[in-house]
Amino acid sequence: MSEVYFIGADVGGTTVKLAIVKENGEIVHKWEIHTNTDNQGKSIPEDIHKSIEEKLVEQEITKEKIAGIGAGAPGFVDTNTGFIYEAVNIGWKDFDFGNKLKELSGLPVWVDNDANLAALGENWLGAGHGSQELIAVTLGTGVGGGIISNGQILNGANGTAAEIGHVTVIREGGAPCNCGKTGCLETEASATGIVRKAKAIAEDYPESSLKSLLSSDALTAKDVFEMASNGDEASQAVLNDVMDTLGMAIANLAIAINPEKIVIGGGVSQAGEQLLNPLQEAFKKYALRRIASASSFQIAQLGNDAGVIGGAYLVKNNQK
Amino acid sequence: MSEVYFIGADVGGTTVKLAIVKENGEIVHKWEIHTNTDNQGKSIPEDIHKSIEEKLVEQEITKEKIAGIGAGAPGFVDTNTGFIYEAVNIGWKDFDFGNKLKELSGLPVWVDNDANLAALGENWLGAGHGSQELIAVTLGTGVGGGIISNGQILNGANGTAAEIGHVTVIREGGAPCNCGKTGCLETEASATGIVRKAKAIAEDYPESSLKSLLSSDALTAKDVFEMASNGDEASQAVLNDVMDTLGMAIANLAIAINPEKIVIGGGVSQAGEQLLNPLQEAFKKYALRRIASASSFQIAQLGNDAGVIGGAYLVKNNQK
Repeated sequence: MSEVYFIGADVGGTTVKLAIVKENGEIVHKWEIHTNTDNQGKSIPEDIHKSIEEKLVEQEITKEKIAGIGAGAPGFVDTNTGFIYEAVNIGWKDFDFGNKLKELSGLPVWVDNDANLAALGENWLGAGHGSQELIAVTLGTGVGGGIISNGQILNGANGTAAEIGHVTVIREGGAPCNCGKTGCLETEASATGIVRKAKAIAEDYPESSLKSLLSSDALTAKDVFEMASNGDEASQAVLNDVMDTLGMAIANLAIAINPEKIVIGGGVSQAGEQLLNPLQEAFKKYALRRIASASSFQIAQLGNDAGVIGGAYLVKNNQK
Repeated sequence: MSEVYFIGADVGGTTVKLAIVKENGEIVHKWEIHTNTDNQGKSIPEDIHKSIEEKLVEQEITKEKIAGIGAGAPGFVDTNTGFIYEAVNIGWKDFDFGNKLKELSGLPVWVDNDANLAALGENWLGAGHGSQELIAVTLGTGVGGGIISNGQILNGANGTAAEIGHVTVIREGGAPCNCGKTGCLETEASATGIVRKAKAIAEDYPESSLKSLLSSDALTAKDVFEMASNGDEASQAVLNDVMDTLGMAIANLAIAINPEKIVIGGGVSQAGEQLLNPLQEAFKKYALRRIASASSFQIAQLGNDAGVIGGAYLVKNNQK
């Protein structure tokens, strides 16, 4: 049988990540193009198509060898049709992305939410190791998620499944969230949430490293982790609180899903064991014993490639 | 094609509910036998088998017309093999229920958790109406659940998915739960939880109907609903609090699953609109707008038949 390739395309707010991927998941070539959000992002399908055509020529791969394109978008997706209900950062609203890319490229196209794609990627070649039951949590500027159950990604009734960042964790008096609610997980456990909490707590610790760094006004979540590992009590208090909240939220999700793997990705996950150890402890406190005994935590392994690898998997999984 | 029948068997702590069901879901005959929990429930497969044989003779249905048995057990089930990890009320622990029943009956047998079976039954012929995405919540002595996503019941890594009653809703200082944790949904929103909360709040309302009934010492959740609908402030305060908690817990689950239907069953659901109206209001407060817009609440319709109907569906869905 002749060689077959998949194309992964991960559309983000500033760049579109693209990759040509072999059947075994090996990346032959990866590259990025600028995401042109002018004119409500209308030119993006064409930009992607042209860039793929150029790369195939450059890589000397004929189009017949491409089984399809698997694309991710940061928004709500009808995965049956590739129709985007809404992707705020791109400017898409009721945008027929999948069909447009299909018409232009002449290739089969499958589309899913970008966080779901990352979960599929991690499950295929990263920390998930082909699990049938997986919860992926992305801790970045916001908190995203993807859930695999019975071996399938959950999309839900209108493409809004696994929006883990918007689980309510502070019932009353929580911080306002972009979604319009208050007390969402995202307001507590994202990089932004960690900084917000650090700023709030710093006043209670006038002698802390946290308090002194605060005046520099460029505090990041990474700083908080660093100060905590250097013994700063204020920073430790912030992280203890965040990890307890995150552990409870994941335990509650795990009670619904009964996962085998829980994969933590995104910028904040670079803290590694410093994050995983207290998180697992909090998780055990709030999870049913049978649930905890069935599941293990892992840090995501594919980094920024998770989306394009997940896109390739979408093609692999759906091709005839 | 000649007529085909399914057998549903719903094993509970005191009775086993049984039914012969037509392909369209119509119950030809239903009956109950005593659950013999002596000797760790070892005789149950044989009891079920014998009872089915008798009924088939009585109903003049030959065994060739039976496509299989779909059975439910109140515990943790390996649905691939019908093996019961544990079913405390029955006395089963590592019990090979499915294979035993298969050997005795000579029929194909499929087994699932009883709450999952009830969810499947409601989704086939009751309030679910064949939804691909459904959350079923059973409010009885405890709080149980079943989740259908991508058209399939979620079982999870070790048969513990959808144990909705054990989601943590009171983070600190919640009531102790049978599972060993505190603050589980079951301690707040079950019939038992409602009575517990009513007793606790009654002292604050010395003039209330609730306080006066309390001395009778046989307070039920039904009483609390009745007093609330008659204008008793104390009872209303209890139910407002319970529905707010339940609404938040279901909204958080819905953020994972993005359901089309949310079906509320069990004894407490007999309160109907008196339960649904405040519950839906609380749900909307805590759910993402896109999630709320995609989902509707229903009271379960099949009552005690949900389990055997779900058992029949298990056969229907798995038969070749």
